[in-house]
Amino acid sequence: MNNSKNLFYAQSGGATAVINTTACGVIETARQKEEINNVFVGHDGIIGALAEELIDTSLESAETIRQLYHTPGSAFGSCRYKLPPIGQNDEVYQRLFSVFEAHDIHYFLYNGGGDSQDTTNKVSIMSKKLGYPLKCIGLPKTIDNDLMHTDNCPGFGSAAKYIATSIKEAALDVAGMARTSTKVFLMEIMGRNAGWLAAAAGLAAEQDGDAPHIILFPEIAFNEKRFLQRVKEVVQTHGACTIAISEGLRDEHGDLLIKSSSIDAFGHVQLGGIASKVAALIKHNLGYKYHWALPDYLQRAGRHLGSKADVEQAYAIGQAAVEAVIAEKDNIMLAIERTSNSPYQWQVGEVCLNDIANHEKFMPKEFISEDGYHITEACRDYMSPLIAGECIPPFKNGLPVYARLKKQTIPPKLSPFEI
Amino acid sequence: MNNSKNLFYAQSGGATAVINTTACGVIETARQKEEINNVFVGHDGIIGALAEELIDTSLESAETIRQLYHTPGSAFGSCRYKLPPIGQNDEVYQRLFSVFEAHDIHYFLYNGGGDSQDTTNKVSIMSKKLGYPLKCIGLPKTIDNDLMHTDNCPGFGSAAKYIATSIKEAALDVAGMARTSTKVFLMEIMGRNAGWLAAAAGLAAEQDGDAPHIILFPEIAFNEKRFLQRVKEVVQTHGACTIAISEGLRDEHGDLLIKSSSIDAFGHVQLGGIASKVAALIKHNLGYKYHWALPDYLQRAGRHLGSKADVEQAYAIGQAAVEAVIAEKDNIMLAIERTSNSPYQWQVGEVCLNDIANHEKFMPKEFISEDGYHITEACRDYMSPLIAGECIPPFKNGLPVYARLKKQTIPPKLSPFEI
Repeated sequence: MNNSKNLFYAQSGGATAVINTTACGVIETARQKEEINNVFVGHDGIIGALAEELIDTSLESAETIRQLYHTPGSAFGSCRYKLPPIGQNDEVYQRLFSVFEAHDIHYFLYNGGGDSQDTTNKVSIMSKKLGYPLKCIGLPKTIDNDLMHTDNCPGFGSAAKYIATSIKEAALDVAGMARTSTKVFLMEIMGRNAGWLAAAAGLAAEQDGDAPHIILFPEIAFNEKRFLQRVKEVVQTHGACTIAISEGLRDEHGDLLIKSSSIDAFGHVQLGGIASKVAALIKHNLGYKYHWALPDYLQRAGRHLGSKADVEQAYAIGQAAVEAVIAEKDNIMLAIERTSNSPYQWQVGEVCLNDIANHEKFMPKEFISEDGYHITEACRDYMSPLIAGECIPPFKNGLPVYARLKKQTIPPKLSPFEI
Repeated sequence: MNNSKNLFYAQSGGATAVINTTACGVIETARQKEEINNVFVGHDGIIGALAEELIDTSLESAETIRQLYHTPGSAFGSCRYKLPPIGQNDEVYQRLFSVFEAHDIHYFLYNGGGDSQDTTNKVSIMSKKLGYPLKCIGLPKTIDNDLMHTDNCPGFGSAAKYIATSIKEAALDVAGMARTSTKVFLMEIMGRNAGWLAAAAGLAAEQDGDAPHIILFPEIAFNEKRFLQRVKEVVQTHGACTIAISEGLRDEHGDLLIKSSSIDAFGHVQLGGIASKVAALIKHNLGYKYHWALPDYLQRAGRHLGSKADVEQAYAIGQAAVEAVIAEKDNIMLAIERTSNSPYQWQVGEVCLNDIANHEKFMPKEFISEDGYHITEACRDYMSPLIAGECIPPFKNGLPVYARLKKQTIPPKLSPFEI
C-alpha cells in the first residue's frame, strides 16, 4: 500500500433519483487517483462514521458501481442526524476523528441538502479545532432545489421531469372523463417551504389552456374564495381543472394548511394530505367530482424518468469533489453555475460552506405569475433546461435494473460508541 | 363517394395508457379499407352518438393519428353512461339508430371494460329488435384486468409495469432512509374488487427480501392483528417494510375498509384513502414512521412507462376489430388468447358478448401465496410477459409529446336530444 489516504463519502437526508449517480462519480473518479487508496462509505450517512460502520467500496465490482449511475434511492443508506453545535458534546467530534484516524481517512465528502451542508461545515470547523487533518467538501443534493448559491441542485431536475410528465399524463386522463365523471384533479407535490417542484408542474402547460390550470405555491398565501372562483372559471372554460398543489401551502397568517404531528431530527414537520383537504373544499363548495394523487416518494425515486441534464450534473459533482480534495480544497460546497441560458451551459463551481448551511432558497417573485397561480416565462426559461434529455436505465423482464450492493463494512478497530 | 359505410368508434369508462393505441389501430386500419368510408368517433363515448357529436377523423392528419399510438388518456373523450335496460326507454335506442342512419353508420366499435361491453351488447340486441343493420364489436380495455374470457386486458400491462417499477423505486428510497426515518411505506393501488394490479406490485420482488414485502389483496379479508405482526417481523428482519395495498381491501365481513360517499353512474363507490388508514394503524400500534403514496390516475395514464406487449396488443385489437366488422362479425368482444407461455405468444380471439357483460374476473387462488400476502410463481409466470418490453414515447423539451386532436364534429342533421 502506498502513502495515499482514504476518502470518506456519505449520503444524507432524503434520497433523490440521482444521488447514487454522484456516488458513482466519486467512486469511479477516486479509483483512478493514486492519491486515494480506498473509498469508505458511511453506512447510513454520518452515523456510519460515528458507529464505525464503513462500507468497503473496493469489494464492489466496477459493474456494480456503474449501475449506481442509474439507481435511485440512497444505495449506501442515508440519515437524518444532526451533529451537536460546535462547543457542545465535543466527544461526538472526537469520536468521529478517532474513526477517521483509525482508518486513515483524510478526505470527507458529504452529499446532501441544507442540513447536510451544516454537518460538513461543522466537521470542517472541528477538524481544525481538534487538529485533525481533513479536507471537507459538501456535495449538493435535494429535490427541493432550495439550496443557496447554486443555480440548481442535483436531484431537482429529475423530480421536476417526473412531476411535469405525470401531471401532463394524468390531466389527459381527466380531460377525457370530465363530461360525466371527474372534473377536478389535484396532484400534491413535495418541496417543503419552497415552490420549485410545484412550479415544475407548470412546465407541462405548453400551450394556452393546457394543464395544470392552477398551481398553489407555498410562497403565495392561500385565498379560499379567490381560489374557488378560479376553479369554477377553469371548469366552465375547459371542462376540467387540473391543480398542482404544494405540500407546504400556507394561509394568510403563514400557517401550514395541513400538517401531521410528526417532526424529524431537524425539527421539520412531516407534511402531506393537503390535496385531500382542498379537494374536499372544492367538492363542498362547487360540487365537482374530484380525484387526487399523492406521488410522495415516487416523485423523488422515479429514476426511470431521470433528466439527462440532472444525471450529468450529479455525476460531475462527484467527479469534481474528488478532484477538489486532491487539490487540497476544504470547507466548500460544490455548486452548479449556469454560464449560458441559450444554449444552456453550466459548470461546477465552489461556494464557501459558511454561506450555505441552514438557509433556504425560495422561488423569486418574477417566477410566479401576477395572479399567483402559474409560472412565468422567466421561470420556464430557468427550469426547462433542467428537465431536458432522457437517461433511461436498462430494463430486464419489464423492470429497470438497479444496483445491488454488497455493502460489506470493514472490521471495526475501536470500541462501540453510543450514538 | 363509393358504397362504403361509416364506422362508429368510441371510448368508454376509465382511461388507460393504451386505449388511444387501440383507436390508432382502428383508424389506421379503416383508412386502408375500401369497405369503410370514414371513421366517426363519439365525443365522450356513447354520449357522442346520442348527442350527435361525431368527431370527423378524416380531418386528423396521419401524423396525429400515429401520435395516438403513444398518447395516454381517452383522446376523444370517454364517459360513464349506462344505456337503459332492454325494453325500457326504447327512445334512447331509437335515437341512437336515427343518428347512425343519418350518418350512414353501420359498424359499431365500443372500447371499454365490463360495463362498456354491456353497452355494446345492448346496442347489438336492439339493432336486431329495431331492424337497423349494424355490426357491433366490443374492444376490451381496462387497467383492472377484470374482464372475463380474455387472458388479459389491454391497459393492464402498462399499469402493471408502472406499479411494479414505481414500488421498486420507492422501496429503494425507503430502505436507504429506514435507520433514522421512514420505516414503512404504503402504495395504494387501483383495481376495484380485483387484486390484479396489487399483484403486479409483486413483480418488483425479484429476490428474497425484496419489496414489496406485503401485498394486501381485495380477495383476502384484512386481519389487523395478523397484518401488524407481519409488518413488525418485516421491519425487524429487513429494517423497512414496503406494502402494496389495494383500494378495494375488505374486512372479514366483506365490507370495504374505506369508501367515500361518491357513487358513479354504474353504482360503483369511489374508492381511495385506505393507505392512509392502514398507515395510521401501523403508527398507532407499532410506532413506525411511515410514508404513503396514492398514484391514482398516474398509474393508468403513465404512458411513458408503457409495456411493449400491452401496446402491441392494444393496437392489434383495433386492427382486428376493423377486420371483424368487414367480415360481418357481430355481437362479439375481441379477446387476447395466450397460445404459449414460454416463449410468450398470443393472438386475438373472439368471445360472445352475452358471456362478458357485467361479470368481474378475480385473482385465482393459485396466484396468491398461502399466507395471503404475496403472489405465487404461477402469478409471476402469468403476469411477467404482460409488462415485458419498453415502448417509450418521443420526448421534446424534456416532456413526452402527445397527440393534440382537432376533434371537429360533423354538422348535426337531426334535432337535439336530451340525454
